[in-house]
Amino acid sequence: MNSKAKQRVSPSVIRRLPKYRRCLLELQSRGIQRISSKELSRITGFTASQIRQDLNNFGGFGQQGYGYNVEELFKEVGGILGLDKEYNVVLIGFGNLGQAVANYLQNKIGFNLCAIFDINPNLIGTELCGVKVRDAKEIKDFLKINNADIGIITTDKGSAQSTADLLCSGGVNGIWNFAPLDLVVPSSVVLENVHLSDSLYTLAYYINNQNQQNKPE
Amino acid sequence: MNSKAKQRVSPSVIRRLPKYRRCLLELQSRGIQRISSKELSRITGFTASQIRQDLNNFGGFGQQGYGYNVEELFKEVGGILGLDKEYNVVLIGFGNLGQAVANYLQNKIGFNLCAIFDINPNLIGTELCGVKVRDAKEIKDFLKINNADIGIITTDKGSAQSTADLLCSGGVNGIWNFAPLDLVVPSSVVLENVHLSDSLYTLAYYINNQNQQNKPE
Repeated sequence: MNSKAKQRVSPSVIRRLPKYRRCLLELQSRGIQRISSKELSRITGFTASQIRQDLNNFGGFGQQGYGYNVEELFKEVGGILGLDKEYNVVLIGFGNLGQAVANYLQNKIGFNLCAIFDINPNLIGTELCGVKVRDAKEIKDFLKINNADIGIITTDKGSAQSTADLLCSGGVNGIWNFAPLDLVVPSSVVLENVHLSDSLYTLAYYINNQNQQNKPE
Repeated sequence: MNSKAKQRVSPSVIRRLPKYRRCLLELQSRGIQRISSKELSRITGFTASQIRQDLNNFGGFGQQGYGYNVEELFKEVGGILGLDKEYNVVLIGFGNLGQAVANYLQNKIGFNLCAIFDINPNLIGTELCGVKVRDAKEIKDFLKINNADIGIITTDKGSAQSTADLLCSGGVNGIWNFAPLDLVVPSSVVLENVHLSDSLYTLAYYINNQNQQNKPE
């Protein structure tokens, strides 16, 4: 629990934090050590005032006349997001999307993929970077003896809710759902969705209403 | 251009529309013909007042004391999003993620995947449901003689900007970007990102701040 973030912060602010972090990482890779909110505004597309307000939710971090120290702010934003911690992750559904997400996770420090599950006998027993694909029937037993913080659902729509139920009763704290439906989970479990259609349809809207906004955030 | 949507509508409203549509589709599949904003609120998690306000941006559609006609509202929302139109789509990058997105598109009416490109000689020449995987070197020539409305970027980070440049000069109206960077595109091109890390890090935040919100929107 981040002590600086005990008051409720707007979800829009939280969703902007990863973008700040991405920009700060990019700046670091270019050897830039400090940046003003004005320059950060140019890079992120958010207004300087919004950036200052967003960061003020967590204590500010900037200095009048100096701006922000890039390395420090990168670490602070990572800390706010909880990226200084470790998470045990299980993934269910090892089709193309599951494989893409599992591959993606291989490069994510702090997110340790400890088990993959599928129902396809051709996939069960195969491995991805040392992580074995197990029979989906074993999810319940696996979670009895192994701690998992995050469950990723990359199953088809039909299996997603029952998978979520298994994950929740198995004690995960969060679900990262890629299946195209609105899952029902207990209030103690955080649900984050990647709904591809929501994104595609938003794109379609802006293609037809280009005058309204060029770059949907 | 949707005549009902000429005024600028807040991006948050637009991003809620696909969820309304998904709920309305689900209601239709259950044979439900009309719904009140109160019931719609229970299903979507948005307040009834927000739902009414959102839909009022486009003309309302509800009737006092009756609520909404599910089938009509589903069509209206689809029309607002531009889902009554056809889009020619090209996809660049046919790794796991590209294959997952291409498979996903096969079931999306109105989004016609007409070409896939990759640089991998083992993939070039293969097919997905009749769509041939072409050499990425052919993108420019392909777009000279074929109209593409949407370009999907599922390449690695390093190739994403040059791919976007090719797509933009080839005349696409929108880019659906899955690569983990902030692309630069002309203001005439709509850019919609699926940044997996932004979503994963938001999940991490709420796992560490569960008291703030159970279900990040």
